[in-house]
Amino acid sequence: MPHDITILTENELRAAVRLDLAAVDTVERAFAALASGKVVMPPVLSMAIPDANGEVDVKTAYIPGFESFAIKVSPGFFDNPALGLPSLNGLMVLFSAKTGLVEAVLLDNGYLTDVRTAAAGAVAARHLAPATVTTAGVYGAGVQARLQMQAAHLVRPFRRVLVWARNGAKAAACAADISAALGIEASAIADPADLAAQSQLVVTTTPAEEPIFLADWLHPGLHVTAMGSDQGGKNEIEPRVLVEAGLYVADRVSQCERLGELRAAIAAGLWEGGTPPELGDIVTGARPGRASEAQVTVCDLTGTGAQDTAIASVALAAARAGGAGTVIST
Amino acid sequence: MPHDITILTENELRAAVRLDLAAVDTVERAFAALASGKVVMPPVLSMAIPDANGEVDVKTAYIPGFESFAIKVSPGFFDNPALGLPSLNGLMVLFSAKTGLVEAVLLDNGYLTDVRTAAAGAVAARHLAPATVTTAGVYGAGVQARLQMQAAHLVRPFRRVLVWARNGAKAAACAADISAALGIEASAIADPADLAAQSQLVVTTTPAEEPIFLADWLHPGLHVTAMGSDQGGKNEIEPRVLVEAGLYVADRVSQCERLGELRAAIAAGLWEGGTPPELGDIVTGARPGRASEAQVTVCDLTGTGAQDTAIASVALAAARAGGAGTVIST
Repeated sequence: MPHDITILTENELRAAVRLDLAAVDTVERAFAALASGKVVMPPVLSMAIPDANGEVDVKTAYIPGFESFAIKVSPGFFDNPALGLPSLNGLMVLFSAKTGLVEAVLLDNGYLTDVRTAAAGAVAARHLAPATVTTAGVYGAGVQARLQMQAAHLVRPFRRVLVWARNGAKAAACAADISAALGIEASAIADPADLAAQSQLVVTTTPAEEPIFLADWLHPGLHVTAMGSDQGGKNEIEPRVLVEAGLYVADRVSQCERLGELRAAIAAGLWEGGTPPELGDIVTGARPGRASEAQVTVCDLTGTGAQDTAIASVALAAARAGGAGTVIST
Repeated sequence: MPHDITILTENELRAAVRLDLAAVDTVERAFAALASGKVVMPPVLSMAIPDANGEVDVKTAYIPGFESFAIKVSPGFFDNPALGLPSLNGLMVLFSAKTGLVEAVLLDNGYLTDVRTAAAGAVAARHLAPATVTTAGVYGAGVQARLQMQAAHLVRPFRRVLVWARNGAKAAACAADISAALGIEASAIADPADLAAQSQLVVTTTPAEEPIFLADWLHPGLHVTAMGSDQGGKNEIEPRVLVEAGLYVADRVSQCERLGELRAAIAAGLWEGGTPPELGDIVTGARPGRASEAQVTVCDLTGTGAQDTAIASVALAAARAGGAGTVIST
């Protein structure tokens, strides 16, 4: 039986979905659903393509209450820059959660992942950062460095941003972009310890395999979101950070144990904190969030299929409402 | 950087790829590659959607020498027939194996899976069935019952087909379709033991969870292909068949241990045959195939991502050569 499928391009999706409070609320809803225990989210499918220095990940989740579920395919081909192509790409496919029929193909080249990843940072900041943040800092100078600061600013309207990256020129360019996007002061900083000392909220956004954020830099009232690690080999923050913080929160415990900062802390033999709370538990109030303005908090984001299903669903609805897309009958 | 993506519908794919010897050769090439040990094929990602009596599987494989790799998503929603919709659907997405960029979206609604599954049956028949087959039999009366007989006939031009199914009317309709498609005699048969007794080649194509093919029916010179079991709960052939046969062959040992007839034989405590050969080992000659016309042989097909990558690659090439498809720039 023929049915209609909507094909959406990156430009159409950029017009339909922006990194705004609505996107943050959508992703927050996905985390709340995750905490309900009713979401079905299988482990990530990963395939390496060593001949091309590439890998591909597939994520999905079914969230009761959403009419569709997304399957996201994220290739990462790390020799692409030499070819003038971005390393990260991909698409999402939305299926009816009632019939399994394909509803839409979202050719986003990773844009929706960028949005839902930054939105998760805002959810973490909303529920875990101190009430007053005047300076926010970011480690790394890529797309997520920019987007994480934009997202966090939606929920903590800080006045200043500091950017640290190994490459000072890239840090300066990133700071300039953030300043232009938010209309606030933003500057590169050479000393990563200084960045931590001057900030109340920091986000690590690097692909580091050795810690670039050290436990000695923790200070009362600091919140740290680590979003760079999404694979077993990555580790951005010194494992001791997780145990010295007053509160450690995982986006999904089962993923952070394998792919996140929690993995490194367990491997170092430092983690004796039992089962930590998940971000959704904090969102729903099932587990307590920040206990005081002085507490040190950490959130470990590995990225969940639930976020993908949520952002893809609202993207399709918004695109259709705007009349966007190519309809194919098959 | 914008790039072009080809969108192909089921009708376009049906025109581009047929179940013929070329398709069989394509799938055979995938099995040979699997046996080379150079294919990367991660475990199947599976997600249940119990609210809708549904499930979704994702398969993929990278085959060196193929310029693309496919990711296939196969939803199965078993309340669909009550809605007038087929239970099985899905699509394949082809990615460049060099850059990870999306090359094509194949909206095949499961058609390419039907073809590559039947083609695998033909590869098994070509290498394992006795040289002379005058009567072939099939258990089940669905799409694969028809296609498996068509595919097997390409490599063993038998003169007669017997069809058994629980529902005699469906068996008769299936036999009529097979007769029309192949131009040979085909009839339904009421006794499944009789079917085995009269055939030199049988294929089981059911979703049975209890054996519908019994070991007592084995006779010299019989080849059995079991293609229905692709999940841990399924079991078409009595576990004793695997040990009483002179040769048992898996499409992929690691999958058959979890999803195929081999799983049931291991669970029954009957399997002591060590690591069986894979179909690709027989294709390449690395392991011996049928030893004599009188030997009893069994092939266990669970379906591999390598088949998907192979059939999707040739489908895209054929469709492009024919000028088919909608090109989207994103």
